[in-house]
Amino acid sequence: MVRRIQWSGHACPIARAVDVLGEPWTLLILRNATTGTTRFDDFRAELGIADNVLSTRLAKLTEAGLLARVPYRDGGRTRHEYRLTQAGADALPVLLTLAAWGDEHTSAEPPAGRMRIVHRTCGARTRPATSCDECGRPVQREDMLWYRPWRSKEPVPLVEPVG
Amino acid sequence: MVRRIQWSGHACPIARAVDVLGEPWTLLILRNATTGTTRFDDFRAELGIADNVLSTRLAKLTEAGLLARVPYRDGGRTRHEYRLTQAGADALPVLLTLAAWGDEHTSAEPPAGRMRIVHRTCGARTRPATSCDECGRPVQREDMLWYRPWRSKEPVPLVEPVG
Repeated sequence: MVRRIQWSGHACPIARAVDVLGEPWTLLILRNATTGTTRFDDFRAELGIADNVLSTRLAKLTEAGLLARVPYRDGGRTRHEYRLTQAGADALPVLLTLAAWGDEHTSAEPPAGRMRIVHRTCGARTRPATSCDECGRPVQREDMLWYRPWRSKEPVPLVEPVG
Repeated sequence: MVRRIQWSGHACPIARAVDVLGEPWTLLILRNATTGTTRFDDFRAELGIADNVLSTRLAKLTEAGLLARVPYRDGGRTRHEYRLTQAGADALPVLLTLAAWGDEHTSAEPPAGRMRIVHRTCGARTRPATSCDECGRPVQREDMLWYRPWRSKEPVPLVEPVG
């Protein structure tokens, strides 16, 4: 892609980040990896993404160091799963600021319950953000649950990044 | 685009935001609009983007309400420029979190001075973020300058959104 050659070493950090993260499927794969999806078949089923597109995006995210390709045993076979790394986990603020913008400026059709962040430290259920509406403090990754009523009545914790 | 039909009314605000913002050129157009670019020819020259791609992206951003198409007089002719709206200005945290990720996890080649945010209220020059490294407080849009040494020795203020 011409685009990668242009932007990967660009002086502007926004351009360099866009080179890795600025693509729809990439952002949605990272979103799902953030709440614990690791396996090809699960990403495919959850996202409704074509096999070849998913393969390409997972390979790019692995190459860029946001996911780690880790072997696991499936019956007698060795397969690979994709685990979120620290660099992948560090994209969380990008996902949260996207969520905040989407929450503010777009709406679900048909209407759906809103995404909220549960801040474990103070107990509040706040809007997607990097700081808490209620206590004003920064919400650390480990103190955060994602509440998405259209998926589950139970807020889910975020995965711990690997190595 | 199939993608828009799938995501524009999705229950997940990240998916809805990605539907509008999750595209490389769109994010770079918004970045440049944030520091005051308004005219087609200027976007084209600054971004090195093809005319037809730029037209499509500007139309989509206008339709989605992030840019407003505003007439201006150019000699005897009426032309149009693209001004950042409040919804476009509200994408600033997305740009800042992308910048923070890019600053942390990628590097310029050849090396370039780093992007910094000048926080006018406390005077500090901090990393791209939504709160100040120095005083810890949230950095409001109007209290922020962007310092990008590869472009200029002078930090630049961000534009005020229209209407």
